[in-house]
Amino acid sequence: MPVPHPAPISGHSYSAVELVVDRDAVVMLDQRLLPTEETYYRYDTVEQVAEGIRAMVVRGAPAIGISAAYGLALAARSDRARGDFMGEISRAGELLAATRPTAVNLFWAIERVTAKCRDWADLGHEERSRRVADEAIAIHREDVEACKTMGAIGAQWMPEDGVVLTHCNAGALATGGYGTALGVIRAAIAAGKKIRVLADETRPYLQGARLTAWELHMDGIAVEVITDNMAAHFFSRGEIQAVVVGSDRIAANGDVANKIGTYGVACLARLHEKPFVVAAPWSTVDLRTADGSGIPIEERSSEEVTHVGAKQLVPTGVRARHPGFDVTPARLVTAIVTERGAATPPSNATLAAIAPK
Amino acid sequence: MPVPHPAPISGHSYSAVELVVDRDAVVMLDQRLLPTEETYYRYDTVEQVAEGIRAMVVRGAPAIGISAAYGLALAARSDRARGDFMGEISRAGELLAATRPTAVNLFWAIERVTAKCRDWADLGHEERSRRVADEAIAIHREDVEACKTMGAIGAQWMPEDGVVLTHCNAGALATGGYGTALGVIRAAIAAGKKIRVLADETRPYLQGARLTAWELHMDGIAVEVITDNMAAHFFSRGEIQAVVVGSDRIAANGDVANKIGTYGVACLARLHEKPFVVAAPWSTVDLRTADGSGIPIEERSSEEVTHVGAKQLVPTGVRARHPGFDVTPARLVTAIVTERGAATPPSNATLAAIAPK
Repeated sequence: MPVPHPAPISGHSYSAVELVVDRDAVVMLDQRLLPTEETYYRYDTVEQVAEGIRAMVVRGAPAIGISAAYGLALAARSDRARGDFMGEISRAGELLAATRPTAVNLFWAIERVTAKCRDWADLGHEERSRRVADEAIAIHREDVEACKTMGAIGAQWMPEDGVVLTHCNAGALATGGYGTALGVIRAAIAAGKKIRVLADETRPYLQGARLTAWELHMDGIAVEVITDNMAAHFFSRGEIQAVVVGSDRIAANGDVANKIGTYGVACLARLHEKPFVVAAPWSTVDLRTADGSGIPIEERSSEEVTHVGAKQLVPTGVRARHPGFDVTPARLVTAIVTERGAATPPSNATLAAIAPK
Repeated sequence: MPVPHPAPISGHSYSAVELVVDRDAVVMLDQRLLPTEETYYRYDTVEQVAEGIRAMVVRGAPAIGISAAYGLALAARSDRARGDFMGEISRAGELLAATRPTAVNLFWAIERVTAKCRDWADLGHEERSRRVADEAIAIHREDVEACKTMGAIGAQWMPEDGVVLTHCNAGALATGGYGTALGVIRAAIAAGKKIRVLADETRPYLQGARLTAWELHMDGIAVEVITDNMAAHFFSRGEIQAVVVGSDRIAANGDVANKIGTYGVACLARLHEKPFVVAAPWSTVDLRTADGSGIPIEERSSEEVTHVGAKQLVPTGVRARHPGFDVTPARLVTAIVTERGAATPPSNATLAAIAPK
């Protein structure tokens, strides 16, 4: 049921996900309805939060991680958790982990909260619930801070005055509220650079057309939308000076999984000798996965390609392929920007250099 | 008003454009309604034919040329032509030429028919009308033959057993009835090769999803649709063995203008070391244009990107860019296949070598 949205932690006027003040529910913006409707839902149970992630009410790797943490906070409060706290947390974690396979932040957030829960298992129900909610809120606040730090670091690759291409939505809507790729653009503009954005529409889900254009326009940042197949043309005309994107998982060698189409953009940036910058919180780096070949690529349904709303684009009887993500090899990446610093050129050595000891 | 479709010259069960038996009207398939509706319209005047071209009821460079020739046949029959034949032909030619700027076949067909009209200006009205209609039908028949010849020549670059990527629709629906790029695929299959097709959906107009998928499925050729941004991923996985596309205009140096997105596909084919083949009738070659920088690129409306049917994809207040075509430099083209032979590697010299003397 639609509800008013709570005051966002980020200070923005909109937000992908928040815990309500009473901490007994999560409020999520239905990103499937943007850009024509800004509707928030209230979810009272971890099951509802998991379904919201699966159905892509919320999307974007960091926002999925935050949502999962809030889902565990709801699970910790539930009547079932009163009797079997770790059983309930474990079931909730499994439920949340099964929603989306590619974004590693999801698993990172579940593991972080679950590890704390083990420490707190012997505390009373109220105290435990309070601590789990505090931990989830901390994950959210840290994400906003991390995005701002990434922005300050990544801004160096943005032009003084020019056009930056981005793919999908790695913005406020994909994170706790400032954005990874769009955080780099926000920080560059805050530092006085004159940036206009070209947003790939990002078929089939149109996150660029619907979400990136919406949030940049809300914030007064100049943005135009292009179909994904136009980027090459604008590169060839010298109309794009840099690319910045987010990531769903970064392997130890610097290979980057991100929304389908990112690899093609990276190929074009290399061919036209422009910087290709990836901005992602450290929680996106998966040092346990050696390279991109070990990253599972989510296969989504043919129907998401063959139909836009009720409109059928493909003849009855013909199927569409639908890999949800692709892998950009480290050699095509100019810099991986995290809140711990930038790895450049990306490789095992440079990512390891900024890893927590 | 919808009408039954006439027997196509090509022998296919469907057709983009035909002159009716009585030669007093043109029948056009409304390609905007595919793949869900196969609807044909009857046009009695050159004004209606011009509007059909402008509004993209018909599209595809060779089909546009054939349509223009049929439009002139209607103009030659009109009562106005009875009094001022060359004035009427000249007005009709200007009207048709103003519909679409990029496809050179349009101007080629208008010039060819207009030159004949000058020779026939002193004949009686009936005889002149008959000859103009015969000439337009000849252009249509020659196009089908040219496509079959191109197919036989181009098939050598197709894999024995594998996947061929195509962009937009350069098929039966874009020509007199066999196709340029899809003609190469049809000929390769007829020669015993096992080809499956990946069709780029080709935003914003979705010619790949709607038209290429429809006509290949009608003909029993295996086809799957992908969003334009997926091609890079399938190249990286080794799932694409060759690319074949059509063209709207080829400059003297071998630079190729084609539907927006073609240049990006050419970049990917080069980076992944796969053949990038362009199939187009000789009428597409514009020796008067030295290179791609001289080819006008049609700018179409923002709304064609921001909306799919009634559905709004982009926030109110945000504009989309919409170049209708792009230019692929000759250095990225493996072969330009025409009915006069193939130019490879493309350059002034090799195109000139197969030019009519």
